[in-house]
Amino acid sequence: MRTVELEQIMAALDPERVMAALAAGFRAFAAGECQVAAVGHLGFPGDADCHIKSAHLDGDDVFAVKISNSFYGNPAGVPKEDGVIVVGSARTGAILAVLHDHGELTGIRTAMAGALAARLIAPERPRTLGVIGSGDQARRQVAAIRAALPFERLLVCARRPEAAAALGGEAVGIERLCAEADLIVTATTARAPLFPAALARPGMRIVAVGADAPGKQELDPELVAAATVIADSPGQCIDHGEAGWAVRAGLLDPARLIPFGQALAEPPSFAAAETVVVDLTGVAVQDVVIAKAVWEALAPA
Amino acid sequence: MRTVELEQIMAALDPERVMAALAAGFRAFAAGECQVAAVGHLGFPGDADCHIKSAHLDGDDVFAVKISNSFYGNPAGVPKEDGVIVVGSARTGAILAVLHDHGELTGIRTAMAGALAARLIAPERPRTLGVIGSGDQARRQVAAIRAALPFERLLVCARRPEAAAALGGEAVGIERLCAEADLIVTATTARAPLFPAALARPGMRIVAVGADAPGKQELDPELVAAATVIADSPGQCIDHGEAGWAVRAGLLDPARLIPFGQALAEPPSFAAAETVVVDLTGVAVQDVVIAKAVWEALAPA
Repeated sequence: MRTVELEQIMAALDPERVMAALAAGFRAFAAGECQVAAVGHLGFPGDADCHIKSAHLDGDDVFAVKISNSFYGNPAGVPKEDGVIVVGSARTGAILAVLHDHGELTGIRTAMAGALAARLIAPERPRTLGVIGSGDQARRQVAAIRAALPFERLLVCARRPEAAAALGGEAVGIERLCAEADLIVTATTARAPLFPAALARPGMRIVAVGADAPGKQELDPELVAAATVIADSPGQCIDHGEAGWAVRAGLLDPARLIPFGQALAEPPSFAAAETVVVDLTGVAVQDVVIAKAVWEALAPA
Repeated sequence: MRTVELEQIMAALDPERVMAALAAGFRAFAAGECQVAAVGHLGFPGDADCHIKSAHLDGDDVFAVKISNSFYGNPAGVPKEDGVIVVGSARTGAILAVLHDHGELTGIRTAMAGALAARLIAPERPRTLGVIGSGDQARRQVAAIRAALPFERLLVCARRPEAAAALGGEAVGIERLCAEADLIVTATTARAPLFPAALARPGMRIVAVGADAPGKQELDPELVAAATVIADSPGQCIDHGEAGWAVRAGLLDPARLIPFGQALAEPPSFAAAETVVVDLTGVAVQDVVIAKAVWEALAPA
């Protein structure tokens, strides 16, 4: 069993290769070719929890179990995230590696899914990217999406106006962001819609990454109900993603959800006025893909 | 994050202390004072799987996530078991340790639960212990139960007659075992009853440890239905323990199951002719207890 610390993990990571593997992983997941275990969850006092996600892509040599701890109430100076991904051999059951990534691989694979989603739904010749939120994941989304698509401008809507400068964008209010952004990415810890459906305009394209647990919500269910909705995992999105709020309100037929991997396999063509939402809750297939990529780079066959 | 290999783990393990902690852990679990995450499971070709069990005892400083791989189809020379227990801080979320126990701690905590169960249900002055099975867990159960209770004789019913000698007992058929053993422990991978209910005699006491996954079965549901049934986890036992077969056959009212931890807290007095079964499916509270004991011995506060 090899223990791999963060520096080595980052040195082994080839982002382009992982992006391609991630798209293939989502396609396999949508095709029923990825086994995903029940998600484990432990909660702790003070907005803190541990999530355990495990998956194996059919036929692969390795599988992965990810343990990620988020302790948002930690005092300053104490990291709020820690975690490992354990890589096991699907041939012998041997524990091959423990990747001590401190949650970093989750941050990266989440941003990469956002970039894949952005590439899928962005209108032609997108000029303006809008981001709601200014935390770690907002920063990662902006970087990944800008690397994938040639945006010229970045509009940032965040509680702290100085956050926009840190992200290299222009601080704006929610109305301007909704009116001007060709693509919006939402990356907050919100538990209520960030803007009313009335601010939605025809052709709005949204990548929603904040809702990753029950109770979280970024979008108005009426907006979601009126949109074409692409779900990284229809089951999970109905359980605790944006889609769930619209389904529970009786506004959205679950059968209308398009699996993300299916959309990546056969990209739909969207009408210019079509509102499209990609609901990303985070699935274990992403973890096994990124862990496998790191492991293969460290231990070539 | 500390990586701890097996030799160090074994050196840190104080069996008596763990037994006491395990009993306390079961009591807490039965009292609703232990958080247990959904069990994760991945299956692989050829009778191989990965189980993920996670728990946190209320108020404890640490929690544990156990990954245990059993690959029964591995060729000779390749270990059939591997695994780790990850110890996390319940205060900060920091990953404190990865105990690379190769599944050994699971074997130990399972045998210790068997010994606690034997002590609870054995008749007064037990003379003869009977074991069905001769594998690794049968060996562990015999050792743990003999350490806990003063049995004079060991009867072994196993497919391979030479196994009895290896266990230090007398090879017998199932009829003699049922007729003569004061306490029986079943530790097989059976998927059908090991003996018919007709062989049961009044006052039979059975510790059943084999059924740890759907499809596994060691006892005749009619025997279970007629017995006082103590369950390490009523929910799990109904899902995939011996109790489940009797419940699904309509023979056993789930409300009759006595939680193991409750029985440990307030030991019932059994009538001499009372048939008693302890149904042990293995619960995550055992994993967190043994991992915590190892961690505390390694890193004293």
